Parts: sequence; structure tokens; C-alpha cells
Amino acid sequence: MLDQLTILAPGLVGASVARAAKARGVAGRIVIWARRAETRLALGEQPWCSATCETPGEAVKGADLVVIAAPVDLIVDLARKVAPFLKKDAVVCDVGSVKGEISRLGHEAMGGSGHFVGAHPMAGSEKTGWENGSESLFEGRTCFVTPVEASDPRAVKKVVSFWRDLGAEVVTLEPDRHDEIVAHISHLPQVLASSLCAFLSARDPGWRNFAGGGLRDTTRIASSDPKLWKTILAENRDELLRALRGFQDELQGLQAALANRDYVEVTARLERGRAYRDKFRPAP
Amino acid sequence: MLDQLTILAPGLVGASVARAAKARGVAGRIVIWARRAETRLALGEQPWCSATCETPGEAVKGADLVVIAAPVDLIVDLARKVAPFLKKDAVVCDVGSVKGEISRLGHEAMGGSGHFVGAHPMAGSEKTGWENGSESLFEGRTCFVTPVEASDPRAVKKVVSFWRDLGAEVVTLEPDRHDEIVAHISHLPQVLASSLCAFLSARDPGWRNFAGGGLRDTTRIASSDPKLWKTILAENRDELLRALRGFQDELQGLQAALANRDYVEVTARLERGRAYRDKFRPAP
Repeated sequence: MLDQLTILAPGLVGASVARAAKARGVAGRIVIWARRAETRLALGEQPWCSATCETPGEAVKGADLVVIAAPVDLIVDLARKVAPFLKKDAVVCDVGSVKGEISRLGHEAMGGSGHFVGAHPMAGSEKTGWENGSESLFEGRTCFVTPVEASDPRAVKKVVSFWRDLGAEVVTLEPDRHDEIVAHISHLPQVLASSLCAFLSARDPGWRNFAGGGLRDTTRIASSDPKLWKTILAENRDELLRALRGFQDELQGLQAALANRDYVEVTARLERGRAYRDKFRPAP
Repeated sequence: MLDQLTILAPGLVGASVARAAKARGVAGRIVIWARRAETRLALGEQPWCSATCETPGEAVKGADLVVIAAPVDLIVDLARKVAPFLKKDAVVCDVGSVKGEISRLGHEAMGGSGHFVGAHPMAGSEKTGWENGSESLFEGRTCFVTPVEASDPRAVKKVVSFWRDLGAEVVTLEPDRHDEIVAHISHLPQVLASSLCAFLSARDPGWRNFAGGGLRDTTRIASSDPKLWKTILAENRDELLRALRGFQDELQGLQAALANRDYVEVTARLERGRAYRDKFRPAP
């Protein structure tokens, strides 16, 4: 058990960390910093928040583990800001959707102590905001942990244990490998859902009223926050562009088969898609 | 109330028609034909099946309304087969996902009586088979009804009333217009989900174990039956190819913005997608 867990800038994921940590007895004290005074006030009234602080530096004092839950473009700045206030063996992780640069610059921000270890739970929602957090968000979900070579093995172990304690299945891998994977299984689906919706809105928005379950499900994540996602796509631009090119080859292959009335090929492509999807693990 | 409803070749949708008709008291008698003897045997034991018949012609005798629930490539054949056995004012509809050719050839199959009226409920599942039917499948869902110019207005009215009685919201429109719409809101999402899965399986199938809710939802329909979908895509080939070209323009626009680091444009496209998705009606 951690004596003190500090969470910086909680949105849906950060608040879920606090709720899960409280529910599972992972931390004795949960201290939170949020930028806006009214958010701090509301957070201070939650049963899973022991105290709020007015500055990030103040909030990390005495913490055993700090979780930076800010959007990806603000994580490294926060790491730099709090570094001078950390106690000697404190460990810092984040929850950002991109890990290459954040893992390297986060490591540097700690002055090479090896105590910054990137993390990314594959859990979320099209919703945002700490009010939508849930203590069960991480149960049975993958959480990637992405140390760099110079990371302190004890810090890595602490972060791995923490996410396991929150109910996640931890997968440890290199930051760049992480970015390649999520470009494919998270960022590409987001771009497809958003582009499908943008395209349909240009054709005839009224058609959405006829939508069956298929369109509903394939586009649910298009309701996600564009500003958050812009920063994620920007941060993982190169990997995402590669994934997009690969996907377009696949799509153009099906399109060509359809144009040529090669229905054996069309069926083979649908079969490959089904074989892949049928082997998903049951939803947690 | 219909004295007799006949359902030919029920799968998931056809069985749902029978269950909904029984639950809502829409038909006094529900007679079913299925191709396989063991299916007829199993259907005959269901509380929503009054009788089964060994041939389609026998099954439609005395029916007020016949629902052809077969895959799209078999509908017109069945219509031709049963036409000689229909009573004078019997009306025939189908549940196929494509309507242009089926509406015209179905009309012809009835010898110009005007008593064939195409229908397409926007309800289904990635599952197949009559065992997966549900009496609530059509509640709050759109059902397209697609008469041709020569359709008998009384027959159209009968089909419209029938689907309303099953709980659907009926939208009447021209068959070709229907095909344009479903190419966009149903067939295109299917092709994207299948192609995304086919692409990911070629990259690294193991990544699926890390999938969050986003990938799960965007790809659920990739588990649909490839043989059924091949016939749907083939039947609606021209409209789908047009929709695919339009979608690719949209996707390449986002790709270009990302490549050019034009994040104002990236955000604008994500915003357009969200604005469209946020205005979906609540799920039925």
C-alpha cells in the first residue's frame, strides 16, 4: 500500500485512478491538484479525495507515487514543474496515449533519477471530465508500462504493481513499440470513426436518424473530445501516417475486388476480418 | 390483425418478425417454411410458429401477408416460386438489405399485381440464425418500405402498417434512393470494420488482446457472416463504390492535414465528426 498517491490534473482517467485506488485500498492518502479552483473545490468533496492543493508542487510533496493525468501535450511540463518537490524515492507515471517522447522527456525531467515511468491504460470513453470516472474502469484492461533503458527497475516495479492493483493487466514494452501498436488499435480506429462521421454529415445529416446498431457502434468514439485527440494524433503523427497508408492499401484492395466483380476476393477479405474479430477476448 | 402471416426462410430477422408478430398479436396464425427439414422440425416446436410447411408454395396458401426473409440473392427466386400459390389479395414483402433490383423484379414476379412491396428493417446483429431472433428487434428502429410506381397503394399500406405494428418507424422511399442511403450508413461501415480487422490481422493478430472499448465497438460488425455480406455488397456494388470514393476523399483530407502538420484542419475534421455523432438519437 502507498502512503500517499498524488494525482495531477484528473479527467475521466485520473478520477478513475483515484476511485479505483480508494475502492481497492491501494493508497492511504489521495492528494489531488487540478488547475481550476472550482474543480479543486468539487474534488475536495469526493470521498476518494483526501486533500486538494493549489499547486502541483505542493500536491506531490510526500507522495510515494504521482500520476500525471493531464492531456499528452502537458505531461512533460508538469513533470518538470513537480520534479524539485518530489521526495527522494518518489515515482512518477502518466496516463498519456502516446509514449515515445513523453517517456524520454519525462525521464529527463526527473534529472535522470530513473523514477519517471510512462504508463497508458487502454481504458477510457468518448466522455471526458472527472465526473465520469469509474472505480472499475481498469478491470481486465491492458495497461502499457513503457520504461526507458535508464529507468530504475524498482520504479518500474512500483508502477507495474500499482496498475495491477487497480485491476489492469500490465504489458511492459518499449515506448516506440507502444506507439506503433496504439497507432493501429486506437488512433487509426478513432480517425476512421471521425472521418466516417465527417463524410456522412457532408452527404446528408438526416440519414443518421435511420442508423442501425452497426453505424452506432462503429462511430461511438467519434464523439470523443477533438482537442484531446488532436494532441494525441499530433504526438503520434509518424506512426499513425504509416498505419493509415497500410489501412488504405487494404481498403483499396477490397474496392478493386468489388470494382472487378471479383467476389471470391471480396469474400476472402471479409473472412479475414471476421476471423480476426471473432478471436477478441470477451469484453471485461 | 392478419389471419395468416407466412415467413419464408427465416434467419435472425425472419424469426424476429415471427416473435414480434406473436408477442404483439399482429397475426392469428404464423406459418413458416425453411429449406432444411431439421430446421422446420425445430421451428415447429416454437410457441410463435403455428405450422411449418415442406414447400414455399404450400406455406403461402391462405396467407394475407408473406415475408420473404431469405438472403438478398434468393428473394426474387422465392417470389417467383410462390406467386402461383398466393390468394388474390395476398401481399408479399421481403427484408433484404438492398432494394433496387429486388423491388422491380419482385414486382414483376407477381405478374404486375402490385402486391410485392420491398421492405428493409434497419435492425440485425453480427449474429445469424433464427435462434438469435428477438421479439423486440424492431422497436424504435427504422424500417424502409420501397414501393415501385406500379405498386398497389393498398398493398403498400398493408406493409407499412405491418412494420409499424412490429414496433418499427416506417420510412417510405424509392428503391434506388434506399440503396444510396444504406450504401453510406450500413454497407460502408461494414466494409470499414471488415477492412480494419483484415488489416490488423496482417500486422500482428496478438495486438487485439490489448484492445480497448474503441476498437471493440468500431469492429463488432466485422464478425458478421461474410457470405451474406458478399451478396449484399455485390447487389449494391455501384452505390457502395461511390460511397467508398467519397469516404476516401475525406480520409485522405485528414491524412494530408496530418502530414502537413495542419492541426487546425485536423481539429476541424474531428469537430465535424463529433457534431454529427453527438446528434444521433438515443439508442432504442
